[in-house]
Amino acid sequence: MTALAERVLEGDVRAASRLMRWIDDGLEGAAAELRAIFPRTGNAYVVGITGSPGAGKSTLTDRLITICRKRGLTVGVLAVDPTSPFSGGAILGDRIRMQDHAGDPGVFIRSLATRGNLGGLSRATGDCIRVMDAMGRQVVIVETVGVGQDEIDIAQMAHCTVVVVVPGMGDDIQAIKAGILEVADVFCVNKADQDGADRAVRELRSMLELRHALKPQPVYDHDEHHRMKGAPAKVEPRDDEWEPPIVKTVAARGDGVEELWEAVEKHRAFLERTGLKKAKERTRAATQFVALLRERLLSSALQRLERERGRLEEVASRIAERAADPYELAESLASQLAE
Amino acid sequence: MTALAERVLEGDVRAASRLMRWIDDGLEGAAAELRAIFPRTGNAYVVGITGSPGAGKSTLTDRLITICRKRGLTVGVLAVDPTSPFSGGAILGDRIRMQDHAGDPGVFIRSLATRGNLGGLSRATGDCIRVMDAMGRQVVIVETVGVGQDEIDIAQMAHCTVVVVVPGMGDDIQAIKAGILEVADVFCVNKADQDGADRAVRELRSMLELRHALKPQPVYDHDEHHRMKGAPAKVEPRDDEWEPPIVKTVAARGDGVEELWEAVEKHRAFLERTGLKKAKERTRAATQFVALLRERLLSSALQRLERERGRLEEVASRIAERAADPYELAESLASQLAE
Repeated sequence: MTALAERVLEGDVRAASRLMRWIDDGLEGAAAELRAIFPRTGNAYVVGITGSPGAGKSTLTDRLITICRKRGLTVGVLAVDPTSPFSGGAILGDRIRMQDHAGDPGVFIRSLATRGNLGGLSRATGDCIRVMDAMGRQVVIVETVGVGQDEIDIAQMAHCTVVVVVPGMGDDIQAIKAGILEVADVFCVNKADQDGADRAVRELRSMLELRHALKPQPVYDHDEHHRMKGAPAKVEPRDDEWEPPIVKTVAARGDGVEELWEAVEKHRAFLERTGLKKAKERTRAATQFVALLRERLLSSALQRLERERGRLEEVASRIAERAADPYELAESLASQLAE
Repeated sequence: MTALAERVLEGDVRAASRLMRWIDDGLEGAAAELRAIFPRTGNAYVVGITGSPGAGKSTLTDRLITICRKRGLTVGVLAVDPTSPFSGGAILGDRIRMQDHAGDPGVFIRSLATRGNLGGLSRATGDCIRVMDAMGRQVVIVETVGVGQDEIDIAQMAHCTVVVVVPGMGDDIQAIKAGILEVADVFCVNKADQDGADRAVRELRSMLELRHALKPQPVYDHDEHHRMKGAPAKVEPRDDEWEPPIVKTVAARGDGVEELWEAVEKHRAFLERTGLKKAKERTRAATQFVALLRERLLSSALQRLERERGRLEEVASRIAERAADPYELAESLASQLAE
């Protein structure tokens, strides 16, 4: 056990910050520390907050921090959203607001800056969740922008994914359909004091109903019905099926945020009761492992490429001139793994 | 040369559609075809159209198709945007509109459905651009959603990246700052008949000025100034620097779209004059190669993992229980590449 990993496990904020900086910068030293803390992770409850820029995710996160603290829970916040004030992306007013928690050792906020790092964002997010977990944070909130494939991967790292929409963004609901809907456990219609909030709720509800209708339904048992001599039973949602609730909030005023947290807690109870928590954790482990593997492999392959064929820039230059074949190069590097 | 590749090179739409379907589905057969067509690619001019959902990218694309056709250019459109009507993601009205080009053999529109495919989206996009290129399409328009890391990778595959914003989305402009700004060659303020269009233009302009101010400036030569005996010269933009123009459009009415295409053409002339076109093509080759390599490696590694340690689901299950160490597994697979 290294000294740094030891200090992270003791909950040391400076040690954790340093390790997360190493992760964000893609430094090799991080791997040994992450291996050392790994056996002691798996205790934090991970909540994802995702949605378009301007949906008010940071304000919501801020309110959820306060609620968790009231309930005696320690909190870690990981801002993967480039527009989040937590990651320094938004206007000054927001930045001042988040200072509310600055003096509270029970709140640990860090942002991930990784950009253009050859797909390293989801790997870095997975690793940073583990650091906060190892520190003993009971709740880890991960704030992401809800469009893009990496972001969907990241949403899958949470036990509970809250998808935030705002009124009057019909097109955004279309976008949600395309991927994030499948990973949403709770919907939040924020800025619900604006026009169109009820319409947004209705649109989400009909999307959910459509999805429900497309799922295979339990077969109606004619004999069973006759034995009961009653009217045909209404098809009730099955015990092991979760219907994502839709919660209206006005985060700026704090309205509805208690209800939102209750929905998250209810989902947690559902996961525990049905044993689906383990299934979520397997999905998370798979997503994190694939992200880690993908980046680790690429890094080794590029090193080998450089040794054998020159730097990436030179190789790319030959590809651009059609003097090298990228398909042959990728094949030859991948074949090392096939043996 | 296979029969399918041969037909793609002859511009056969059905052959190209089939190959793109193979690419989208991640079928192994695609690799041989892509290798066969690769030496004959590199001729198409690739234009990226990127921006938030609801920014009107598809309507703009539609108008640009018409302009290209008027100028006698053949067009391929690749919709990577899940909200695009071209990819079947949007409302019926839009879907009817795009039928304008249905009878025109000079327009070839295809969408990519790849989602949750372990980071395969950028690889698939790169491959599909090559197919349209090999078919002889002179212009290839790639429509993407402008948030997310994969989407920034995809934007870097274009010669010219048009970033579309709409008035009244201050937060979106914040989001653009975080990554896509660096790859924007032309800005389009669409729906410019709405309130706040001029404000959006001003905000973009000040962002660009800020970026310009942060760049190293040519050193002011005091002696040279005295020899000239004139007033200190205004620092002119250097010949090899491109200032992204900001074009206002109302795509639904067709306003400003000619100007937008002229900005794209002007950028093309700039790239050719300065020799920066080659640099762009090197960047594109690198981005496409890394995407290809990353996915090819992952697929080989997962096969090897399955052979040696069991299926991904089983391995993930052991990781979730802390009975397997993901860092050790990733390391051991990557070490095959280091030898």
